[in-house]
Amino acid sequence: MELIQKLNWRYATKRMNGQEVPQEKLDRILEAIRLSASSAGLQPYKVIVVKNPAVKETLKVAANNQPQITEASHVVIFAAWTKVTEEKVDAYLNQIATERNMTMESLAGFKAMFTGIIAKSAEENFTWTSRQTYIALGTGLVAAAFEEVDATPMEGFNNEAVDEILGLKEKGLSSVSIMTLGYRDTENDYLVNAKKIRKSKEDLFELV
Amino acid sequence: MELIQKLNWRYATKRMNGQEVPQEKLDRILEAIRLSASSAGLQPYKVIVVKNPAVKETLKVAANNQPQITEASHVVIFAAWTKVTEEKVDAYLNQIATERNMTMESLAGFKAMFTGIIAKSAEENFTWTSRQTYIALGTGLVAAAFEEVDATPMEGFNNEAVDEILGLKEKGLSSVSIMTLGYRDTENDYLVNAKKIRKSKEDLFELV
Repeated sequence: MELIQKLNWRYATKRMNGQEVPQEKLDRILEAIRLSASSAGLQPYKVIVVKNPAVKETLKVAANNQPQITEASHVVIFAAWTKVTEEKVDAYLNQIATERNMTMESLAGFKAMFTGIIAKSAEENFTWTSRQTYIALGTGLVAAAFEEVDATPMEGFNNEAVDEILGLKEKGLSSVSIMTLGYRDTENDYLVNAKKIRKSKEDLFELV
Repeated sequence: MELIQKLNWRYATKRMNGQEVPQEKLDRILEAIRLSASSAGLQPYKVIVVKNPAVKETLKVAANNQPQITEASHVVIFAAWTKVTEEKVDAYLNQIATERNMTMESLAGFKAMFTGIIAKSAEENFTWTSRQTYIALGTGLVAAAFEEVDATPMEGFNNEAVDEILGLKEKGLSSVSIMTLGYRDTENDYLVNAKKIRKSKEDLFELV
């Protein structure tokens, strides 16, 4: 199957059958997320991968009891930095300097790009860091489809409860979205045979 | 090349060589964007694809004169709805009803999901619609890599100027990100041989 066919095959699965995603497929999906683009390459987020059944049970309650949370093989939570700090930016610049064999001085111009971001409020920072998580989510959804693993993206959950369950606040993180990974329950998912609805090319695109 | 290899091959190209992206590759990248996931499937955005050289020149000025804008084959602008209206939601529900052969009455529960969103302020709506564009951007970046087409995601541009150039405001849209599509200029791009910097698995992921 080519990529477009796989994207047509995927849908936001409403019921999963509990089947486990093989480790090598999970690894490739996570690797795609790790390689995901982000503004200035900062990756201002963490990705929590939950397999533990008891934790999934508590997450499910925080997510309006959506059954995929416990029927999924793995529940992936994208959590954005609540503040961009100089310390975090420096850690990133140090990594660049080390891996590209450069001096920190030569990265001064690049560092200057972050000065304005660090100066912004936590709220403004979170708007920006949250947006970055969606690139990673998009990448993860495509990678899952590529592996023929079902995935459900979710936004409508109790973010504070999820942060509490995973201890995110004290790590300077807040949950933004969830992606469940598993396999569609073909007997019980009402969407399993539903036609995919997307805007037509004419509606979505404007050519200039 | 497998997907992971292609994601390792891609990078935020800083200089492009002007070579045109073949129509069939462009079509597949746009089709992937069209098939992209979005919250409740609403796709609350438009995607403007600019090939016109004169328009690219004006966009370049609005994007800090970043050379990829004019060196790219196509410049793709993701523009989010500035307000989620009942009219737009109804158009979407009508499409579902028609394509899935359902009555509008049977979609009342689904419509109710949007009531709270419509009631929110334009600013809150735009925070949410903007986030959705990043899933499409992420999908587009992966699809471009899959086609071995270079792509540069951009955020740091003058959004108001871009909106003005493309007449977005009067269409209830505002620009969020840009993705240039083309081919790397291997002679002049300082990043062409740079090691890809990404957080380690241990840094990015937390397994629970």
